Amino acid sequence: MSKLTHIDGDGAAHMVDVGGKADTVREAHAEGRIAMKLELLEAIKANAMKKGDVLATARIAGIMAAKKTSDLIPLCHPLALTKVAVDFTFLEDGIKVSSMARLTGKTGVEMEALTACSVALLTIYDMSKAMQKDMVISDIRLLSKNGGKSGDWTVE
Amino acid sequence: MSKLTHIDGDGAAHMVDVGGKADTVREAHAEGRIAMKLELLEAIKANAMKKGDVLATARIAGIMAAKKTSDLIPLCHPLALTKVAVDFTFLEDGIKVSSMARLTGKTGVEMEALTACSVALLTIYDMSKAMQKDMVISDIRLLSKNGGKSGDWTVE
Amino acid sequence: MSKLTHIDGDGAAHMVDVGGKADTVREAHAEGRIAMKLELLEAIKANAMKKGDVLATARIAGIMAAKKTSDLIPLCHPLALTKVAVDFTFLEDGIKVSSMARLTGKTGVEMEALTACSVALLTIYDMSKAMQKDMVISDIRLLSKNGGKSGDWTVE
Amino acid sequence: MSKLTHIDGDGAAHMVDVGGKADTVREAHAEGRIAMKLELLEAIKANAMKKGDVLATARIAGIMAAKKTSDLIPLCHPLALTKVAVDFTFLEDGIKVSSMARLTGKTGVEMEALTACSVALLTIYDMSKAMQKDMVISDIRLLSKNGGKSGDWTVE
Amino acid sequence: MSKLTHIDGDGAAHMVDVGGKADTVREAHAEGRIAMKLELLEAIKANAMKKGDVLATARIAGIMAAKKTSDLIPLCHPLALTKVAVDFTFLEDGIKVSSMARLTGKTGVEMEALTACSVALLTIYDMSKAMQKDMVISDIRLLSKNGGKSGDWTVE
Amino acid sequence: MSKLTHIDGDGAAHMVDVGGKADTVREAHAEGRIAMKLELLEAIKANAMKKGDVLATARIAGIMAAKKTSDLIPLCHPLALTKVAVDFTFLEDGIKVSSMARLTGKTGVEMEALTACSVALLTIYDMSKAMQKDMVISDIRLLSKNGGKSGDWTVE
Repeated sequence: MSKLTHIDGDGAAHMVDVGGKADTVREAHAEGRIAMKLELLEAIKANAMKKGDVLATARIAGIMAAKKTSDLIPLCHPLALTKVAVDFTFLEDGIKVSSMARLTGKTGVEMEALTACSVALLTIYDMSKAMQKDMVISDIRLLSKNGGKSGDWTVE
Repeated sequence: MSKLTHIDGDGAAHMVDVGGKADTVREAHAEGRIAMKLELLEAIKANAMKKGDVLATARIAGIMAAKKTSDLIPLCHPLALTKVAVDFTFLEDGIKVSSMARLTGKTGVEMEALTACSVALLTIYDMSKAMQKDMVISDIRLLSKNGGKSGDWTVE
Repeated sequence: MSKLTHIDGDGAAHMVDVGGKADTVREAHAEGRIAMKLELLEAIKANAMKKGDVLATARIAGIMAAKKTSDLIPLCHPLALTKVAVDFTFLEDGIKVSSMARLTGKTGVEMEALTACSVALLTIYDMSKAMQKDMVISDIRLLSKNGGKSGDWTVE
Repeated sequence: MSKLTHIDGDGAAHMVDVGGKADTVREAHAEGRIAMKLELLEAIKANAMKKGDVLATARIAGIMAAKKTSDLIPLCHPLALTKVAVDFTFLEDGIKVSSMARLTGKTGVEMEALTACSVALLTIYDMSKAMQKDMVISDIRLLSKNGGKSGDWTVE
Repeated sequence: MSKLTHIDGDGAAHMVDVGGKADTVREAHAEGRIAMKLELLEAIKANAMKKGDVLATARIAGIMAAKKTSDLIPLCHPLALTKVAVDFTFLEDGIKVSSMARLTGKTGVEMEALTACSVALLTIYDMSKAMQKDMVISDIRLLSKNGGKSGDWTVE
Repeated sequence: MSKLTHIDGDGAAHMVDVGGKADTVREAHAEGRIAMKLELLEAIKANAMKKGDVLATARIAGIMAAKKTSDLIPLCHPLALTKVAVDFTFLEDGIKVSSMARLTGKTGVEMEALTACSVALLTIYDMSKAMQKDMVISDIRLLSKNGGKSGDWTVE
């Protein structure tokens, strides 16, 4: 069975050595969604059609958060991301956030994609909470990862 | 109908003025959960009984992230938090993260509690992803907020 | 003659003591501008009318930078800003950035307003430099400050 | 006509992919100036001859800011700068700040040089504002960039 | 016997609640020293007499680090420091760093003074390590703390 | 005699150019210790045997601080660390902290190892200071460095 690689034999946390890994193109995609009442969703949509600031702000927040991943997640390596993107899809009862991160480097960018997605969702909550406090953020998950020795992976 | 307070009449984002608000004790509670397979949950539990590093690391990450909230969420005010706590409950199919933040100040700490919770969940994912990539983070939501002019609020 | 207050008798830099100052409402306004060719200005304008992303991004960057002022300017005090705003005016040959910062606290927010303005201008440069590299950023200056013992000040 | 590369077809901001670019030596030079009254300029000069702290502090602030560029400018890539330098020239009516940044990497360092210059200028303002509030920061511009596929560029 | 206040009954780390504490003036002083060979000490002294850059840089680094304390030490509260100062004394075999921090607030600033001191010492090491690698940093300790309910304390 | 490489001919600080250096595996080890009274040491040990949170927190703080080194030490280059580890040894009168950092890159990681060690020690102080204020941090030093043109070095 595979092990928890961030914990050594004595149970102590450490940043695992990725120095021996090859520099390859690595990419990860993630998504998540926030559920809200129709009235709020319509307000964001209307705004999006005019100036788009809730989503524009959430997009910037997500991109900037991807760059802070190693500052937020204790055992993540600092990475020189080559691309980050965040997109939005309107659902019937909320908004879906899709994110991707890409790197030519020694370790995967799953956490960068997931962090971008999470912070974009939190930003939508922040900018909308005056209208609804019981929004729920759900289904944050990795969709796929490519590159690296462990190979490609796509969620079923 | 209440409005999106972070957007002015022209749709431009701004950090709303909280200078006129009173300094009162404000507190917020949030929670979320991460679903994982039993084998992984047992590994974290076993570890928790020994040295607890996955959860100890996630706890520290969540507390530190609460302090970074205004650096992550574009329109959040910088706040001098007086208390932050993060706790864990083992569920049948995963782990629940509960967080709280407290402040004596001019604005609420909902985003600080939600950010602590989200980053603790991401840290659990990061430290466990070698064993399972399709974990899902869900049900991140505000449980309650207290203090301030808008009064107390508890999720139904 | 007034002295350079960040340097003591021996010429050593230090963060001056503001502990004895009263908590009053303090506000500062600043502005600056970036000159560009007409073709680029029109592209930004056209974009602004559709989705406004150059200016929306610059606005968010300016607001977030105001919150980082004490992290950038070595002798600035960390401050709990209560409001930050950044606005744009189209000029004949470029864009004017106007910024303001407000605080209930012990020291002025001139540097916060100036930093918001500077970083918003740099962000416009960054997002436009593929079209023009010789844009020039000029006339960054304080317009007014209010509050505090030293009284109000407005540029002539 | 060249396009605003940070904005996609739908007007959404994103961090452009530089993964396909080659690792080459890239260098950028920038400059700017701050105008001040003679009395203040003489005070800084006298100080510079003794301990140099206004300029020493501004120099350190500029160098450290270059390293924070991707944290300040939303769509800048995180870069492993190999050199940063900031210098000063006394003008008749103020101080000129010259900056340079160098990298072996996949994208240019124009923003790093411009950010170093801007923050050094803001630091001079901060350390001098007790003596003069109406100083003006001007003529921040890129002087040259070298390296990369788009070739070398020098301001006319 | 007094307890480890950052650990609750279950041994879990948390940021202790200081919300009930009064806003009083709090101050802390700390010191530490770095031992080096005479040749290096003389080089720093000579430099200090000319432009002082090793010590000027270490001073700025220490002051800026004090402002980052809550970002470095996991359970420290974010604080609005009102004053920070770092000074140097030449010893026979090295340099002594003295630091102080002051706050009008709800909790002590011991960690801010100790962090300023530690980072100033590390900066001296960094700027001098080309000449000597076996410098030793020692005797970092709190000298005194004032203010707050627990009263004043001075090292014996 | 070797020179202070961070200072140029005119005494001005700058970030030295490492662009011409080769990408090699570089590693550094450092250590330091904190002296405390027996009663406190036993309390930490007892806790370590149960949940280990003082040391688990200090470990995380040290690892995260290594990643912030270039943000703390003004002239350090930003580096993509490939491994960081922090360990603890109980001494008769305190705790020894051992740290290591590894990189495939153009410059050494001595400061990263020393920063991890210093911040882990400060965190132990912070979490224990309710029981003892006159703990002393000492003997922070580099143990060895490997890789790079200047060759390997081990403390005598």
